[in-house]
Amino acid sequence: MRMYDIIAKKKIGYELTLDEIEFAFMGFTREEIPDYQMSALLMAIYFNGMTLSETINLTKCMANSGEKVDLSEIQGIKVDKHSTGGVGDKTTLIVTPIVAACGVKVAKMSGKGLGFTGGTIDKLESIKGFDTCLSIQRFIEAVNKVGACIAGGTSNLAPADKKLYALRDVTATVDSIPLIASSIMSKKLASGADGILLDVKTGSGAFMKSIEDSIKLAQIMVDIGYGAGKKVSALITNMDIPLGNKIGNSLEVVEAVQILKGAGPKDLTQMCVALAVEMLVLAGRGDADFCTSLVEETLSSGSAFEKLCEIVTEQGGDAQMIREPSGFTVARVCKEVISPKSGYITKMDTEAVGISSVMLGAGRDTKDSEIDYSAGIDMKKKTGDYVKEGETVAVFYTQSEELFDNAAEKYLSALTISGNKPSESPLIYAKVEKSHIMRYE
Amino acid sequence: MRMYDIIAKKKIGYELTLDEIEFAFMGFTREEIPDYQMSALLMAIYFNGMTLSETINLTKCMANSGEKVDLSEIQGIKVDKHSTGGVGDKTTLIVTPIVAACGVKVAKMSGKGLGFTGGTIDKLESIKGFDTCLSIQRFIEAVNKVGACIAGGTSNLAPADKKLYALRDVTATVDSIPLIASSIMSKKLASGADGILLDVKTGSGAFMKSIEDSIKLAQIMVDIGYGAGKKVSALITNMDIPLGNKIGNSLEVVEAVQILKGAGPKDLTQMCVALAVEMLVLAGRGDADFCTSLVEETLSSGSAFEKLCEIVTEQGGDAQMIREPSGFTVARVCKEVISPKSGYITKMDTEAVGISSVMLGAGRDTKDSEIDYSAGIDMKKKTGDYVKEGETVAVFYTQSEELFDNAAEKYLSALTISGNKPSESPLIYAKVEKSHIMRYE
Repeated sequence: MRMYDIIAKKKIGYELTLDEIEFAFMGFTREEIPDYQMSALLMAIYFNGMTLSETINLTKCMANSGEKVDLSEIQGIKVDKHSTGGVGDKTTLIVTPIVAACGVKVAKMSGKGLGFTGGTIDKLESIKGFDTCLSIQRFIEAVNKVGACIAGGTSNLAPADKKLYALRDVTATVDSIPLIASSIMSKKLASGADGILLDVKTGSGAFMKSIEDSIKLAQIMVDIGYGAGKKVSALITNMDIPLGNKIGNSLEVVEAVQILKGAGPKDLTQMCVALAVEMLVLAGRGDADFCTSLVEETLSSGSAFEKLCEIVTEQGGDAQMIREPSGFTVARVCKEVISPKSGYITKMDTEAVGISSVMLGAGRDTKDSEIDYSAGIDMKKKTGDYVKEGETVAVFYTQSEELFDNAAEKYLSALTISGNKPSESPLIYAKVEKSHIMRYE
Repeated sequence: MRMYDIIAKKKIGYELTLDEIEFAFMGFTREEIPDYQMSALLMAIYFNGMTLSETINLTKCMANSGEKVDLSEIQGIKVDKHSTGGVGDKTTLIVTPIVAACGVKVAKMSGKGLGFTGGTIDKLESIKGFDTCLSIQRFIEAVNKVGACIAGGTSNLAPADKKLYALRDVTATVDSIPLIASSIMSKKLASGADGILLDVKTGSGAFMKSIEDSIKLAQIMVDIGYGAGKKVSALITNMDIPLGNKIGNSLEVVEAVQILKGAGPKDLTQMCVALAVEMLVLAGRGDADFCTSLVEETLSSGSAFEKLCEIVTEQGGDAQMIREPSGFTVARVCKEVISPKSGYITKMDTEAVGISSVMLGAGRDTKDSEIDYSAGIDMKKKTGDYVKEGETVAVFYTQSEELFDNAAEKYLSALTISGNKPSESPLIYAKVEKSHIMRYE
């Protein structure tokens, strides 16, 4: 078998066999296939796509390339959740304790933030002592003991995907639906949960910009999951507007606590209830109505909040910091961003909002950037709100005064302010299950 | 400027600017742009093509990447010819002395054979003493003195193309019309002739398989040439059947001599007359009718043959070897290939015929393979001929008995023998000039 022939075959649009996929991608992982041949193949895949069978084979091949987590020591059905990444997306911090409080085990592998999107691991690490680098044994113990654990992926989970992603990132071959699907699902298959809920974020603050592309991506991921014996479903959710009001690591932890105490923003609460219900349904806890009542009960009774405290304590974190939000590093600079005109906010370029929070120090420009956990944005006005000239649209937090001006300029450039109140967009566009798509208004 | 953005721009189908082309391709030549980014760009070019303006910019950029031959010391118009490569294509050995004998200077840069196609340099080197590695000064002197010179390209002619071709060759990105056009024309622009005749070989024994693709390629190359102030035209010629009867280096030199003495195969003679006439017309020697009479005169008078002897002598070769063909290394094995059945040869897979001559030792599998100058094929029957079962279809020459069987099997598999006499195909399909295509029957 020759890599040249595999590139040529994909280039003219033929389907690659399992053997050819293994030869190319495992050869690349073992450094037997040079980068320059793989990048040519990746670009040919960008143009000609992959069939479902090719995508499943690639996913399995990458999932098998390293360590696979065996969760059989955890009793009952284990669920996981994956978000394709967005701005202000702190849902994992909220949904994980809710689902665990409803009696379903959550074995959650999370990632760090990169670019304009945040990452759950960074948010959790803003809690003093919180440890996300757990051995698989510790991970299993924690899930067994408190019902949930949120850990960073081990470095040897799907190493083929890691190496491939690094090449895609510099060769403009990231935005290929089968490559995105296999990248996400290879890590999820390797991480051992029985049920996986996919949150495919869609819009100006997400990698997927169109609902139709998101549905296509979700369908492929659901099919891959079932092909590997997992229960998978997906929600296609709105990322044309940041989720909740806070962006930035410790700011988002504080907002998550508000939600769990029943006092957070409505959009974020609704989204978290929907995600938690889906995870419970996937785990077979009951039908949607029953699970909704369970979830609402955990919020009103405070049991979900208590579960978060247990999770934090179990992973070495200081639960007192979230019981009475204090002890987080305080930003040195706290300054208001003022609206230059009056009118309705009709649109927020959510990627630009995310970038402005990175400019304040809340995110990473490159993999090695240091994060300022205290930096971020408290949005006072969002899409649909009326704002007067001179009124505060957001409060910025940062350690360095000089970062403010550029970030504020970026933030204001992200807002479209005009005369007419915009119509409201749905929070959730669609739900994708095996052989079934349900679209919401 | 970032290579990533250039790849992404081409991927979504936008035209690259001159600055972007220089940044990418000169950066690659200087090893500032890694192979894996260039191969991704090449594959995006394969899919999205290049505009004429991009192709001209790429060609000029590669032509300017190394030494440029200055032929201004040679008086009069200098013409060159380029064949895209075929099987049994010894036309350069014949056309060069004809054109020079008609009083037009030929400054010919040639290449070595690779794969199933032969190369002029290899054929000439089968003549004892013949030197194709000339300094530019010696090249100019030779053209001035005898009217023609055939040299191998200097290693520093269009080095960007050389480096790029090596990458295309291993990433399945050779068969892109703008990349082929810019590769050929960058070397031709750098090699200094005023007029260039392109022989675009088409069919089973050529890289270009369809007449329409060949016309498209020719049009782009003609446009590039005019864009750089050169006179260029192209003939689209038949390579569905090997040219002449002989394949292999010294065998082809002997056949070239036969043509120049007026005693060679009809197809090859006609093709050479047509090519020579085009070169003379390009050089402004007269109209096609007048140039045809000039060419025929050089063949009947023997002046073209004498010119070949002068060229050989000037480049250090032993002209006696071609005056009385002898002194060539004699193949140790000379063996007939026998037809397994009776009928008309209706088709020859010309690439397979070329491969069978390589299997006898006449060509190169890789750039570093050694060539056996004596090896090759003398075809006794070609497309359109009737052959009886047990009759000789070809005589094979090789140094090693054990190479015969596989090569003969390959050769016979290339022939389609059936009941009906096939209709005759034209030798020349079309002529492409600036803004004008003439198609022949």
